[in-house]
Amino acid sequence: MTDLHSQASARVHDLLAQMTLEEKAAQLVGYWVDQGGEVVAPLADEMVTTTKYADATAHGLGHLTRVYGTRPVDPIERAAWLWEEQRRLRAQTRLGIPAIVHEECLTGLAAWKAATYPTPLAWGASFDPELVAEVGAAIGDSMRELGIHQGLAPVLDVIRDPRWGRVDECIGEDPYLVGTVGTAYVRGVQSAGVDATLKHFVGYSGSQAARNHAPVHAGAREVADVLLPPFEMAIRDGGAASVMNSYAEIDGEPVGASSHYLDEVLRGRLGFTGPVVSDYFSVAFLHSTHGVAADLGDAAEQALRAGIDVELPTGDAFAAPLLERIRSGAMDASLLDAAVLRVLAQKERLGLLDETFETPPTDVDLDGERHRELARRLAAESVVLLTNDGALPAASARRIALIGPNADSAEALMGCYSFVNHVLAHHPGTPHGIELPTVREALTAEYPDAEITHERGCGVEDHDDSGIAAAVDAATAAELAIVVVGDRAGLFGRGTVGEGNDVDHLELPGIQRQLVERVVATGTPVVLVILSGRPYAIGWALDGDHRVAAAVQSFFPGEEGADAIAGILSGRLSPSGRLPVTLPRSAGAQPYSYLHPRLGGPIDVTSADPTPVRPFGHGLTYTTFAHEDLHTRATVAAGDTVEVSVVVRNTGDRAGADVVQLYAHDPVASLTRPVAQLMAYRRVSLEPGESARVVFELPTARFAFTGRDGRRVVEPGRIDLWAGPSCAERETTATLEVTGEHTVTADDARIVATRVDSLAGAGVVSP
Amino acid sequence: MTDLHSQASARVHDLLAQMTLEEKAAQLVGYWVDQGGEVVAPLADEMVTTTKYADATAHGLGHLTRVYGTRPVDPIERAAWLWEEQRRLRAQTRLGIPAIVHEECLTGLAAWKAATYPTPLAWGASFDPELVAEVGAAIGDSMRELGIHQGLAPVLDVIRDPRWGRVDECIGEDPYLVGTVGTAYVRGVQSAGVDATLKHFVGYSGSQAARNHAPVHAGAREVADVLLPPFEMAIRDGGAASVMNSYAEIDGEPVGASSHYLDEVLRGRLGFTGPVVSDYFSVAFLHSTHGVAADLGDAAEQALRAGIDVELPTGDAFAAPLLERIRSGAMDASLLDAAVLRVLAQKERLGLLDETFETPPTDVDLDGERHRELARRLAAESVVLLTNDGALPAASARRIALIGPNADSAEALMGCYSFVNHVLAHHPGTPHGIELPTVREALTAEYPDAEITHERGCGVEDHDDSGIAAAVDAATAAELAIVVVGDRAGLFGRGTVGEGNDVDHLELPGIQRQLVERVVATGTPVVLVILSGRPYAIGWALDGDHRVAAAVQSFFPGEEGADAIAGILSGRLSPSGRLPVTLPRSAGAQPYSYLHPRLGGPIDVTSADPTPVRPFGHGLTYTTFAHEDLHTRATVAAGDTVEVSVVVRNTGDRAGADVVQLYAHDPVASLTRPVAQLMAYRRVSLEPGESARVVFELPTARFAFTGRDGRRVVEPGRIDLWAGPSCAERETTATLEVTGEHTVTADDARIVATRVDSLAGAGVVSP
Repeated sequence: MTDLHSQASARVHDLLAQMTLEEKAAQLVGYWVDQGGEVVAPLADEMVTTTKYADATAHGLGHLTRVYGTRPVDPIERAAWLWEEQRRLRAQTRLGIPAIVHEECLTGLAAWKAATYPTPLAWGASFDPELVAEVGAAIGDSMRELGIHQGLAPVLDVIRDPRWGRVDECIGEDPYLVGTVGTAYVRGVQSAGVDATLKHFVGYSGSQAARNHAPVHAGAREVADVLLPPFEMAIRDGGAASVMNSYAEIDGEPVGASSHYLDEVLRGRLGFTGPVVSDYFSVAFLHSTHGVAADLGDAAEQALRAGIDVELPTGDAFAAPLLERIRSGAMDASLLDAAVLRVLAQKERLGLLDETFETPPTDVDLDGERHRELARRLAAESVVLLTNDGALPAASARRIALIGPNADSAEALMGCYSFVNHVLAHHPGTPHGIELPTVREALTAEYPDAEITHERGCGVEDHDDSGIAAAVDAATAAELAIVVVGDRAGLFGRGTVGEGNDVDHLELPGIQRQLVERVVATGTPVVLVILSGRPYAIGWALDGDHRVAAAVQSFFPGEEGADAIAGILSGRLSPSGRLPVTLPRSAGAQPYSYLHPRLGGPIDVTSADPTPVRPFGHGLTYTTFAHEDLHTRATVAAGDTVEVSVVVRNTGDRAGADVVQLYAHDPVASLTRPVAQLMAYRRVSLEPGESARVVFELPTARFAFTGRDGRRVVEPGRIDLWAGPSCAERETTATLEVTGEHTVTADDARIVATRVDSLAGAGVVSP
Repeated sequence: MTDLHSQASARVHDLLAQMTLEEKAAQLVGYWVDQGGEVVAPLADEMVTTTKYADATAHGLGHLTRVYGTRPVDPIERAAWLWEEQRRLRAQTRLGIPAIVHEECLTGLAAWKAATYPTPLAWGASFDPELVAEVGAAIGDSMRELGIHQGLAPVLDVIRDPRWGRVDECIGEDPYLVGTVGTAYVRGVQSAGVDATLKHFVGYSGSQAARNHAPVHAGAREVADVLLPPFEMAIRDGGAASVMNSYAEIDGEPVGASSHYLDEVLRGRLGFTGPVVSDYFSVAFLHSTHGVAADLGDAAEQALRAGIDVELPTGDAFAAPLLERIRSGAMDASLLDAAVLRVLAQKERLGLLDETFETPPTDVDLDGERHRELARRLAAESVVLLTNDGALPAASARRIALIGPNADSAEALMGCYSFVNHVLAHHPGTPHGIELPTVREALTAEYPDAEITHERGCGVEDHDDSGIAAAVDAATAAELAIVVVGDRAGLFGRGTVGEGNDVDHLELPGIQRQLVERVVATGTPVVLVILSGRPYAIGWALDGDHRVAAAVQSFFPGEEGADAIAGILSGRLSPSGRLPVTLPRSAGAQPYSYLHPRLGGPIDVTSADPTPVRPFGHGLTYTTFAHEDLHTRATVAAGDTVEVSVVVRNTGDRAGADVVQLYAHDPVASLTRPVAQLMAYRRVSLEPGESARVVFELPTARFAFTGRDGRRVVEPGRIDLWAGPSCAERETTATLEVTGEHTVTADDARIVATRVDSLAGAGVVSP
C-alpha cells in the first residue's frame, strides 16, 4: 500500500483527501442502468438491484456497467445519453468525477451494430498474435469512440476440460498459446487507449467435471505452471490495466476472498498494480454460494481485504455493506483508501478527470471495411481442416446438397458473448444490426454456377428427425454433400455452449450425429463443417464407421466466417488453422490435456485409451509442409537464451501457411513433466517449393517449472526438442543440454522472439 | 531417525551392527519366487526379475513375496516348502534371519482353497465395522497359521470417481466410513498377530479421468481433509503396522519419491513408526514412468531418502542399485540403517528372530464354517435394495425366469483381488478349490417349489445379442424375471472392473442394458440384481423409461453372496446395506463426490445436472424406519466432545436393520465446506414397533478442516446436524453452536464412540 500511495499522483491524493466515506464507497462500485430480466450473468435474476440510480450516483460513481451491451439500443443515440450522463456526474456530484464505462468486448464490442469477430477459440486456432492484436486495436477504437474506457476481455483461462460451457471464450489448452494470443489482444485494445481486463483470475477453467463455478481441484504447482502464466505474460508483456477475479474456489478457497491469490500472487509475484474488478456478483457469492461470509458486509470486507477494488456490475454487495461496517465500528475506514486510489489513478490515466464530454460522437466506424477485412482474415486463418481424402478443395462442384442446422444460421457463426447470442436472443424479432451472411449465402456467392439444394435436416438441439429423410434425398441427388453442424452459443440453458452450458457428453448436440451418419450412408461424398464453441467427439466421422470425405472445424468464426468457410471449401482460400485444443475421444475420458505427464497418456496400466481423436496443433492444408534440420547449440547455461531454428518447406504444389510448432520434453526432472509442451510457434506463408528457416530465441525459462520448494526453476539436464505438424509428431528433433540451475524471476518469463529467415535472404519479424 | 534408533531394541541394534552392506540391503527387498507370466501387477511382464533366488538370498532376505497367492498350489504343501525355506534362511545365511512372508488378503487370504469374502465396497455397504473386524480376524488367523506375517490390505483410498477400475477394492467415498471400516479390518487382522498394510499412501484414487496411475490434481487441503484421514485413523486408532506407498503423483510429485508425504506427513504428522513397503515396482517406476529419476540407482536413493524401507515384490530396483551407489561413493552407506532397523524391529516384534520353523501346519481352517458364516453375514448386510415397488420380497414366486450373464457365474461374486479372478483366471480348468454357489444354485435351493428357467441372454462384455430373444421368451412365460447383470472382475484388460480396468462410460458393460430393457419391455415384473465392482449409471432402470419392479445392488459379495441374495429376494433375509458410494448419473458427470461444496451440486449456474441417481447412504429395507428427535446441547466449546442422539423407530411390520446416519454442514466457514458430511453412524436392528436412541459422543474435531494457514481447526459458529435415510434427506435436524476455536491434534481425530439405548432400557455398545 505504501507503494501505491507513493505511485499515485498528487492530484489523486488530493482528491482522496477531500472525499467523504460515501464518496469513496461510490467510486468502488458500478451501476447497471439497463439490468432487466435478461439473464446475462449468473444468478442475475436473483441479483437485480434494488437501488435507484439517482441514489447510487448521489456521491459519484465508479463504473457505468454495460451501457451499450445489455439492450439493442442504437450506439449513437446511446452515446448521446452517455455524454449527457457524464456531464451530469461532473456537474451534479460534489467532486465532479465521471464514471468509467466498461463493456464486454470478447468477440468484438458487445453493442448493437458493432462488428462481431471470431470467438477466442478461433484466435487460438489462427496461431497469429499479430492479427489478433490488429483485431484488438480495431475493437478498442470502436470502444474509445463510444466513450467506453474498459473492456472485459480477454479470457485467459487455460482450457482443462471441453465439457465446460465457456470453452468458446478461451483461447486454447496451452498456457503459452493463451498467453501470447491473449497478450496480443491486450496490446491491441490498449493501443486504442482502452483498458483491457484479464479474466478470470484464476482457476475458473479447472472446475470439477467442468461444471460452471464448481470447485477446482488443483495443487499449487498446477496453478503456478499452467493457470497463471497467461496472466503473467499479459501483465508483464502486455501491460494489462485491469484484472477480474474468477468465481472459482481452488482447493476450498474462493479467489474473491483470497489475499493469497489476489494479493500475494497477483500483486506480489506478478507485479500487477492496477484495479481488480469483481466478476459480476462474485462479492455477494462469497456469502450466498461459497458460504465463506456470514452476510454481505462480511463478504464485502473479505473481498476488499483480499484485493478486490471495484464491485461489478452494481454495488449492492459492496458500497452500502462496507459503509455500514465502517459506521458500526466493525471495520476501519482507511481500508477503503487503497482501492479508491487505484480507481482514481485509473480515471486520471484514462483522462477522465479532465474530460468535459462536450461532443458526443455522431458517426462511429463500428463495422466498416476495416472491421470486415480483419474479421474475414482472422476467420480464414482460424478454420482447421481436420481430415481430407481429396474432396477438398471442391472447386468444380456443380450439384451441391447443403445440409444441417447450421447451414443457414447467422447465430451459428457467433460466440456466446456476441451481441447476437448474448443479447438479441432475448429480443426476438430485432434485426441483427449488421450483415451476417450465412454459410448458405456465402456458398451461393462462392458457387454461382452450382445448383445448391438446402435441407436443414434437423435442429441443433431438438430431437425431431422428420427432416432427415429430405436431407438424405438431397444428398443422394447431389455430387457433394456439405453438412454444417455444431452448436448454438448462448447463456444459462439457452443454446448448447456458452456460459452455463456445460455438458456431460461430447456428442454433437441433439440428433446431428444421426443426420451426418445417414447422409454419409448415401455414398455421396460428405464435407462436414462444424461450427462450434467446443471440440466434439467426432472420431466416428473422422476415423470410424461413418467416415466423411473431409471435415472442417470452425470455432465460431464471426460475421465474415461464412465467407472464409466458403472460400476454403472452393479453394479460393487455403486452410491454415491449427487445433488450439485437443479433439477429444469422449466425455468420459475428461479431463484431459495434451500437457499430461507420461502416466496421463496411453500406457499399459489402464484399459481406458486416452489417445485423442486429433492432437493439439493438428491441422491440414491444401499443400504439404516438411519440417527439417531442427538446429540448436549442444548446451546452454540455465538462465540464458538459446537460438533454436527449424527449416519449413512447402513440399506441395500450392501456396499455403504453416504454423511451425516447437515442442519440448524434459525426460528427467525432479517432478513429473509433460510429454510435450509448446515452447514457441510461428505462422509462415510459403509458395510452392519455397522454404524458410524459423528462428526462435528461446529463453531457458521456457523449460522452468515450480519445484518442490516452490521456486520456479530451470534444472540442469537434457531437453528433447522437436518440430512437427502437431504435439504428437516428432518430425525433426534435437537435444539440448542445460547446464547449471537457474531460479526464474518474472522478467525471465517473456514472449519468445521469433524471426523468419527465408533461405534465399532474411526478413526479421518479431511479435 | 534418532527416535527410531532409541526405540529399537538392543538386540536389533546389535544385529544391525554386525551386518555387512550386502546383508543390510538384502533385508530391504522381497523376492517373488513364483513370478511368472501372469499379469498380477502393473507392467509386471516388463519387470520380471533377472536375479536368481539363490543369489538374492545369499545375504538373507527381507520379504518372501506372495508364496501362496500367485499360483494354484495346495496351501498345506506350500507351507511345508515355506517352513523348509525359512529353516534354510536361518541355517544358511550368516545371521540366520527368516523372511517376512507377505500376501494379498483383500477379499480374504489370496490362496487357493481359502475363503473369499465380499469385496471392500461391500464392507462399506454394510456400515458394520464390528463385523468387518471379525472378518479381518478370521483372515488373519488363516494367514498366521500358514506362516504369513503381513497382509497387503486394507485399501484406504477414498473413492473420488467410479470410472476408476480399483473402486471395488475401496470401502467408500466418505473418509470417515473408510477410516472406521478400514480400521476395524486392521484391528481384526492384527488381533491374529499378522501385520496389516495400509494402502495406497496417498492419493491414488484421485487420478485424472480416473485412469490408473494418472496424475492426481489435488490441492494440499483436499489431501489433508479427504484423502489422509482414513490413514490417520488406522494408524492412531488401529495401530496399523505397515504402510504401502501409492503409485500416484500428486500435483507433479510422485509419492514414492516424496519425503513430504512419506516423511513429513506419514511419520511426522500421522506418527507412523513402522516400515513403509513399496507398491509393486513403484521404485522402478520413478525412473521408467514418472521420469523423476535418471536411472534405477537414482530412483532407489530417492525412494529410500523419501521414506520407502522395503522394495516389493523383488529388489531389482533397490538392493543392487543402492549397493552400487554406496560402493561408488555416490551415497552414504549409513542411509540404509534406518530402513534396516525398521525391518529388523518388525521381524523381532513378529517373533521371527526366535522362530525355529520346526512344525509346518498340517491342517488349517481356510474355509470352514467360521469363514462361511462370516462371509454369509457380511454379504447379507452389504446388499443394497435400491428401489422396490413391492415386488420384493418375492416369497411366493413360482414361475421364475432367471436371466443375465451373472446369474450362473461364480466369478461374478468375486472381487478383482479374489484368488479366483486374480490368479485362477490365468489357469483355465483349475477348480476353484472352494464351494462357490452361484445365484442360480442359491435360488434353486431358496425356491424348491418354483420352476426356474435360466437364460444367460448375453455375456458380460461381448456384443453377441443372439441370446436375448430366448431370455425375452423366458421372461414372457414367467411371473417374475430376475435379471442378474454387472461386472466380471479382473486385472489389466481381463474383465470389466478391477486394477487397470478403467472405463470412460458408466453404462453396464457390453449389451447388458439392452438385455434388461428388452426383458422389462415384456411387462413381466423384473427384479434387477447388479453384481458389480463399481456403481453404474442405471437411472434408466430405476427412474426412466425401462423401470424395473425392484433393483438390488450387490458389490461382489463373495463365496456366500448368492445365498445372501437369494435370501433377500425371498424375504428370508432383510436387506440392510447402504450405498457407500453415490449411484452416478453418467460418466460425463464425473468426478463427483457427495462431499461437494454448494457449487459442486445442483445450482442455476450450470445446465449440467449433477444430481446423482441415488445418494450416498441410500438403501431401502422391507420395513420402514423413522428418525426422530435429534438431540444435542445448544453449544459446545471447540475441542470438546458433545453428545448427539437420535431416536430410530421401526415403523413397519417386519424386523429390520437400519443404519442411523448423522450428517453435518458448516454453513459459514473460512473456506468452502461440503453440503453434507457423515459425522458418525450406527447399525441398529429393531423389531416392528421397537425404537432405540442412538447416542454419538461426537468430538468437535469431526467438524475440523485445514484452514488457510495449514492448521486443522475447529472454527466457532453454527453447525447444522441432521439424521435421515441418506446424505440428501434431513429427516430430523438440530443446530449446534461451537464456541471458540481449537487447533486439532492427531489425538483429537478418534473414532466416534456410539451406544444404543433401547427406549425401554439401555444397552451400551462401542465399536
